[in-house]
Amino acid sequence: MPTPYTVPVVVAPGEQIAAAIRHAIDFKTKPVGSLGQLEAVAYQVALVQQTLQPELRAPHLLVFAADHGITAEGVSPFPAEVTQQMVRNFAGGGAAINAFCRVAGLELKVIDAGTRGNFDDLPAVINQKIAAGTRNFRHEPAMSAAECQAALQAGAAQVDAVAATGCNVLGFGEMGIGNTSAASVLLHKLTGFHLAGCVGRGTGLDDAGLAHKLAVLSAAVAAHPTIVAADPLAVLATFGGFELAQICGAVLRAAELKMVILVDGFIASAAVLVAVKLAPAVRAYCVFSHESAEAGHRYLLGYLHAEPLLRLGLRLGEGTGCALAYPLVAAAVAFLNDMASFESAGVSEKTAETPAA
Amino acid sequence: MPTPYTVPVVVAPGEQIAAAIRHAIDFKTKPVGSLGQLEAVAYQVALVQQTLQPELRAPHLLVFAADHGITAEGVSPFPAEVTQQMVRNFAGGGAAINAFCRVAGLELKVIDAGTRGNFDDLPAVINQKIAAGTRNFRHEPAMSAAECQAALQAGAAQVDAVAATGCNVLGFGEMGIGNTSAASVLLHKLTGFHLAGCVGRGTGLDDAGLAHKLAVLSAAVAAHPTIVAADPLAVLATFGGFELAQICGAVLRAAELKMVILVDGFIASAAVLVAVKLAPAVRAYCVFSHESAEAGHRYLLGYLHAEPLLRLGLRLGEGTGCALAYPLVAAAVAFLNDMASFESAGVSEKTAETPAA
Repeated sequence: MPTPYTVPVVVAPGEQIAAAIRHAIDFKTKPVGSLGQLEAVAYQVALVQQTLQPELRAPHLLVFAADHGITAEGVSPFPAEVTQQMVRNFAGGGAAINAFCRVAGLELKVIDAGTRGNFDDLPAVINQKIAAGTRNFRHEPAMSAAECQAALQAGAAQVDAVAATGCNVLGFGEMGIGNTSAASVLLHKLTGFHLAGCVGRGTGLDDAGLAHKLAVLSAAVAAHPTIVAADPLAVLATFGGFELAQICGAVLRAAELKMVILVDGFIASAAVLVAVKLAPAVRAYCVFSHESAEAGHRYLLGYLHAEPLLRLGLRLGEGTGCALAYPLVAAAVAFLNDMASFESAGVSEKTAETPAA
Repeated sequence: MPTPYTVPVVVAPGEQIAAAIRHAIDFKTKPVGSLGQLEAVAYQVALVQQTLQPELRAPHLLVFAADHGITAEGVSPFPAEVTQQMVRNFAGGGAAINAFCRVAGLELKVIDAGTRGNFDDLPAVINQKIAAGTRNFRHEPAMSAAECQAALQAGAAQVDAVAATGCNVLGFGEMGIGNTSAASVLLHKLTGFHLAGCVGRGTGLDDAGLAHKLAVLSAAVAAHPTIVAADPLAVLATFGGFELAQICGAVLRAAELKMVILVDGFIASAAVLVAVKLAPAVRAYCVFSHESAEAGHRYLLGYLHAEPLLRLGLRLGEGTGCALAYPLVAAAVAFLNDMASFESAGVSEKTAETPAA
């Protein structure tokens, strides 16, 4: 028997340093507040690291891939084989996330969290397969409680592995045909937001496809009436996916280790939602990279009181939003570390009163 | 007598290659449209460079600084000396734009376009001073027609200098206490949008300061009744600034040379507006980096049919938005160059019809 999973104890960053951070930001040579959201990010990273000189070290992007039994219900316009084809594409360096990680300087790791593929020929793919895809949650729980715990542990293990390289900032991406369905039901069950508001077009459903997806997911929710928000692990096991569960475990471990967590789009945010429900202090470690075009993401971000850095109409997943937003986080850290203060630069401050004409 | 300024002939990029670019973007291994605005940027850069393999070479950020006679009217909460103090800060590497250019890999050049300072002790500051600040356009034209032409030429000369290094992408920033006043009047005069909608808080005016600024600018507009939108150079000379005129000249020359132009916030966009009025094809070369928090910028972006990449609540200028957006442009180019196609990666495409349940 494997060791049972225990939700980590996540402690929010101490607030003792908060006033000093705010002062350092406000006295840089710029009008107060003129760097907008970047000031909030600089503040958050400094608070997480408990220093006025934060550093981003060995940034990583971990992409977790898995297959989903719910695809048997025709909820995606892409065939399920695309999951494993895209894992091969990641390993070959040909996907969007590869291009964006190269531009941003992020180390990319690809993890088979539970696909139907076999990647023994690809040493770049890390095998953490829980099973060859989840079961179809229209009819039965997607995974057993033991599988869910194994997935959470496997996700945490990947964070330990990159933390050992000195990494203190990382993002999580996903690939899994059908996983917008899983994420939509997690959002619905854990927040109580009406299901239709949680379900979107995914990779590109037309109107009929969207109506069908909503009908399937409504029936799926009705099929598991005893699963309630008060037990987030049961919600995750019943409606989740192996990549979602591994990301959830990874997020919890990263927050326990006080790392800066870059949150990608709708699916990654749903995994973060589960983590926040299990350990609310996780939220303090999360930088939300973008607002996805997928329906439901805006609501989910609002629920988490998250202001995303980018609104580019992305709906690809893979962690692409994390990789695109990372340079903004680096810029926020750079201004806090490198900018002169009014005093040090000999620049006059704003006058106290409006000058007379 | 210097050579009179002639507005360059700017030719829009040829559309013959457009369908091929669209095809290349659509057959990358991702759902069609799933990279949102980045797809539009990739398309635009490929069109500007007339190739399916665009390249960004030797990216530069040119910051033009100047002083403004209108500051005598008390339109800014910062003293006018801050313009020259910030030029020293740029030269010393301590400003936000220095930090952001380092992060993004942009070469920064600082140009005295017409400040009241003397930077002979700072070889890093390029002297293109037209005069020691403009005159107060509340009472007289900010500059003479000859000064305006000299400024346009000086801006163009800086573009020639960086083009000679192989640069094919560049952004323009500005520093000049009082220059939101100049930009607001340019916007008002050239678009006809009501003045109150063009005037904002700049570096941080309170309500009384904002009302005073609007009153000053209303009087200034009334003082020059013969200046009309049909003569953009007269509008620029009467209400502009030396940094605005040099950016305008630089933008026109960069478009003539078919470079990718990164447009910063409110003030830089106002300079681009003048350039577009003089040569409408300039617009095709402009990538709009962000929507500033300064009132009027949203309207100006809409007027130029521009969809900015970032909405971070920035209101600093200096070209900071360009430097922050540059990695997104690099990512757009990278996906077009580096991503596999469905065919080359052996990834299945979307099925033609919604699968049945």
